[in-house]
Amino acid sequence: MSGADEFGEIARLFRPLTRGDAGAFDLLDDAAVIPQRAGHDLVVTKDAIVEGVHFPVGEKPDLIGRKLLRVNLSDLAAKAAEPFACFLAVAWPAGFEVRDRERFALGLHADLETFGLALLGGDTVSTPGPFTASLTALGWVPQGRMIRRSGARPGDLVMVSGNIGDGVLGLDAVQGRIVDRGGQLAFRYRFPEPRLDLRDLLRKSATASADVSDGLIADVRHIALASGVQIHLDLDQLPLSRGAATWLEQQPDIAAALVRLASGGDDYEVVCTLPRGVRRPPGFTIVGEVTEGEGLEVRAAGRPVDPGQGGWTHV
Amino acid sequence: MSGADEFGEIARLFRPLTRGDAGAFDLLDDAAVIPQRAGHDLVVTKDAIVEGVHFPVGEKPDLIGRKLLRVNLSDLAAKAAEPFACFLAVAWPAGFEVRDRERFALGLHADLETFGLALLGGDTVSTPGPFTASLTALGWVPQGRMIRRSGARPGDLVMVSGNIGDGVLGLDAVQGRIVDRGGQLAFRYRFPEPRLDLRDLLRKSATASADVSDGLIADVRHIALASGVQIHLDLDQLPLSRGAATWLEQQPDIAAALVRLASGGDDYEVVCTLPRGVRRPPGFTIVGEVTEGEGLEVRAAGRPVDPGQGGWTHV
Repeated sequence: MSGADEFGEIARLFRPLTRGDAGAFDLLDDAAVIPQRAGHDLVVTKDAIVEGVHFPVGEKPDLIGRKLLRVNLSDLAAKAAEPFACFLAVAWPAGFEVRDRERFALGLHADLETFGLALLGGDTVSTPGPFTASLTALGWVPQGRMIRRSGARPGDLVMVSGNIGDGVLGLDAVQGRIVDRGGQLAFRYRFPEPRLDLRDLLRKSATASADVSDGLIADVRHIALASGVQIHLDLDQLPLSRGAATWLEQQPDIAAALVRLASGGDDYEVVCTLPRGVRRPPGFTIVGEVTEGEGLEVRAAGRPVDPGQGGWTHV
Repeated sequence: MSGADEFGEIARLFRPLTRGDAGAFDLLDDAAVIPQRAGHDLVVTKDAIVEGVHFPVGEKPDLIGRKLLRVNLSDLAAKAAEPFACFLAVAWPAGFEVRDRERFALGLHADLETFGLALLGGDTVSTPGPFTASLTALGWVPQGRMIRRSGARPGDLVMVSGNIGDGVLGLDAVQGRIVDRGGQLAFRYRFPEPRLDLRDLLRKSATASADVSDGLIADVRHIALASGVQIHLDLDQLPLSRGAATWLEQQPDIAAALVRLASGGDDYEVVCTLPRGVRRPPGFTIVGEVTEGEGLEVRAAGRPVDPGQGGWTHV
C-alpha cells in the first residue's frame, strides 16, 4: 500500500532494520515469511501508540521508536517469550519531516539491535492527525509453555519485579507536576526496560504472569479474572524507588497515594503468581496472595481500600 | 495497554471475533499463541488505513472494518497464502461513538466469517486525530512455496486477473467526479474482493506475483525491481470493466487515460508472471512480457509513454 516515493523511502529508512533476515525480502515484497521453529509456539502481541496519548507531544522521534518497541517487548517478556521479529505500521503526521522519520527509524534500529529483533515488514502512511504507530512483535516459546494470565491458583503468592509507581510519577515529572531530582522518574517513563531477563525464572516457576502496563491493580485484576480466582493485594508491600518513596512521604493521604502508584501504569515490570513453596526470586517482592473466589481485594495503609477501576492514566 | 473500561469493551466488541480460537485466550491475555503447522511457513503482512487518506471521511464503520481486512487479505492472496488469523490495532477518534465501534466490529466479524479467519489480539486506543487502524494478517503456505515478487524471469509473460482501473474510477465516483451508473465503480472501490480464489493457480504456475494495490504500473515496477529484470507493459491490453471502458471512450487523450487507470491503485487484483509455455489461465489477461534488463517500459495507444512514478493516489 505504498506509493512510488514512499517505496524509495521505505528502502532507505527501514531496510537496515531487517538486519539481513531473509524472510523480510529486503522489504521489497507484499509479505514476509517466517519459517517454523521445531518444538516451539509463536507468541504474538500488538500495541499501538498515539502522540499526545501515549507519549508527550514533541517527544524526540528516536525515543518514540524505542518506546514503541519496548512496550511490545514488555508483553513478550511477561509471557516468557524470546522475541525475534516485528512488523511496523506508522502514520507520519504533516510536521514530521524527513529528519524526524530518520531519527524514528534510527531509534527503532538501535533497540532492534539491543534486543536482537529484525523488522520484517509493515506499512507507512500519511495522516492529517497525530503521529500514530503500531508494532506487532513475535517471539518463540517452547511448545505449550507460554505463561498465561489464566494460571493463578488458590494458595499462590503474587510477586512483582522491580519497582512500581515510577511510570505514573515519571509522567508527572515529564509534565512538570513534580520535582524529579536527576530526572530518574522521567527517564523511567520515557524509556521502559522490558524484563526479558526474567524469562528463565518465569518459565521455571510462574503459574500466571502479565506485564504492568495498565497499572498494577488493573493488571492483577486481569489475572484474577482470567484465572477465576480472588487476589488480595497489599499496597503497603509495594516496592518503591527512592524517588517514589520520597514522593509518598509527602502525600497527605498515604492510602490514596499508594492506590495512585498502583493504578498509573507504564511501569513495564512483571507481576506473576508462584506456588507458595517456591523460593522468592531475587528482585521480586511479594505483594499479595491468591485465594478461591473472584475479583480483587486491595489493602493500603493497613486497611481495605476501594481501588476504583484502578485503570491506566493517559498523558 | 488497555484501561479498565476499555478492557470490558474489548471483550464485548471483539471477543466474538476470535471465533473460538484457543490461541486468542478470549482476548484476556497479553499475547496470543500460534502453534506450528507442520510443513508450512507463516506468511505475514500488515497494512494500515487512515480516514480521509485511505477511505472517505464519513465512510460507514462496517465498511471500514471490511475494507481493512480485505486490503490485507489481498496481499496474502497474491502470495498464494491461506489466511487464518489477524491482529488489530485501532485508534478511535473522538466522534466515533459506541454504536460506530460496534458497527466496525460487526463489519470485521462478518468478513472474518466469510474468509475463515480468527482475530487473535491487538490493541484499542483513543486518538484526537482521524480514525486509524492497522491489521496484521497471517497465512500459511507450504514450506518454501510463497510466491515472491522476485521470481520473474526473462521470457515470462505478465498477466493480470480481473479488471484494472475500477479502483481509481471508483474513488472518482465516490467523490462525485464522474457518473457511475448503478454504483458499480464506487462499490469496487469500497469493497475490494481479495483474489484468494487464485491460490492453486498461482502456486502451480506463477514465477512472481503481487497484488495491484498501488496501481498496476507501480506494482509491476516492484516486480521488475525485485526480480532484476525489465518488464514491458502494454496498456492497450488492459482488461476493463464496462464502466471503465465507457469512461475511457470519453477521454480526449487515450494514452494518458490508460496511464491513469494503470496508476490509480485500489484494484486488489493480482499481477503475476508465468513462463511463456504455460496456458493462460481463465480470467487472466496478458498485459506484458519480461526481458533481460531493468525497469519498466510502458506503451499505450500504440506508442511508448512515460508513466511517471505510476504511483498511487490517495483519497
